[in-house]
Amino acid sequence: MSITITAFERSPDGGMGLARDTRVRWALEEAGLPYEVRPVSFSAMKEPAHLAAHPFGQIPTYEEGDLVLFESGAIIFHIASHCAGLLPDNPGARARAIAWMFAALNSVEPPILDLSIAKITERDYPWAKDRLPVVVDRVRQRLGQLAARLGDAEWLDGAFSAGDLVMVSVLLRTKPSGILNEFPTLAAYVARGEARPAYKRAFAAQLAFNTAKPVAG
Amino acid sequence: MSITITAFERSPDGGMGLARDTRVRWALEEAGLPYEVRPVSFSAMKEPAHLAAHPFGQIPTYEEGDLVLFESGAIIFHIASHCAGLLPDNPGARARAIAWMFAALNSVEPPILDLSIAKITERDYPWAKDRLPVVVDRVRQRLGQLAARLGDAEWLDGAFSAGDLVMVSVLLRTKPSGILNEFPTLAAYVARGEARPAYKRAFAAQLAFNTAKPVAG
Repeated sequence: MSITITAFERSPDGGMGLARDTRVRWALEEAGLPYEVRPVSFSAMKEPAHLAAHPFGQIPTYEEGDLVLFESGAIIFHIASHCAGLLPDNPGARARAIAWMFAALNSVEPPILDLSIAKITERDYPWAKDRLPVVVDRVRQRLGQLAARLGDAEWLDGAFSAGDLVMVSVLLRTKPSGILNEFPTLAAYVARGEARPAYKRAFAAQLAFNTAKPVAG
Repeated sequence: MSITITAFERSPDGGMGLARDTRVRWALEEAGLPYEVRPVSFSAMKEPAHLAAHPFGQIPTYEEGDLVLFESGAIIFHIASHCAGLLPDNPGARARAIAWMFAALNSVEPPILDLSIAKITERDYPWAKDRLPVVVDRVRQRLGQLAARLGDAEWLDGAFSAGDLVMVSVLLRTKPSGILNEFPTLAAYVARGEARPAYKRAFAAQLAFNTAKPVAG
């Protein structure tokens, strides 16, 4: 069954790989599944055709035959449940890998997203400059807790899993600010993720997509 | 196998049911599974014994024999995957119900959590009052999109699922501020959730727990 995902026609990050299609591409590459990408413009994202697939008018969406999904976490979970290598077979280890997916999206990404809001969305408000250190401290606190848990381990719970895939993807968003490098073991963890051949293919694909010449007209 | 969850020794909301143990209690009640609750004080939450179960020093955690889980979304998913009634059997409907779980936690809860941060955590900062309307607007925008998707439907995708359980739990956090009532169809959706016998049992249990007389000593 052919798979089509949506991505920004042009990602706001210009191909740094921080848009959420990259994590889905990565999961598809780990699973060895071919896929097509349909670009969506910022205006088309808020139109009924796209809102039917994604109620919040965002990317990525995922189409596989009749199945249409939104939310990168749910798409990655769907891919991981239908292929080998992204979720352990042992029931306990599998439940813990899924817990790390939820932890990445519900406990680690929110303060990181808040940092993007502070730096970009609320940049021009009078409080932006004074508030930034407060937001940065919350990111630092969460990353400190995560580093304490990871310790010297290679991955969060045994072998590489979809939990690591999502966590590395979320942590990558703290790299441009320099915060990630304040936590050397987390920076090394993220680098291990980036070194995976599947991640490299996903990154290269989104970069080529975002830097391709615009189609005339 | 006996199940034990952790909860605040005394919830900061005094038993309004907004702490995250309530959503796990609700899932356990829907599944008809008996459970024990172990209270954790604010100081004990940051100690090694609890951090071993929950790396971010929060509640709830979930223990079932050798399995220890954290993250309410992951715990609810674990419960839902092992009992009838919380996830559809049809693979497509099941994937979509799981997508709503992720959507509730990664797309709807973050702006709502940001509102709590603005109103409580950052209350004493000089920007708190000026920033509040900006944060409220983001919550309104997300709730408007959700209301547009829900339309006149009873639940988000066919029958009641774990996706609705998590979404209703997340939306309940917008009730005290009055924002939920700005969206009558969402308020009715939340009321349908609260009317479920399993929710009522979960709410009553957390209320009794949070209003019980402290044990002397």
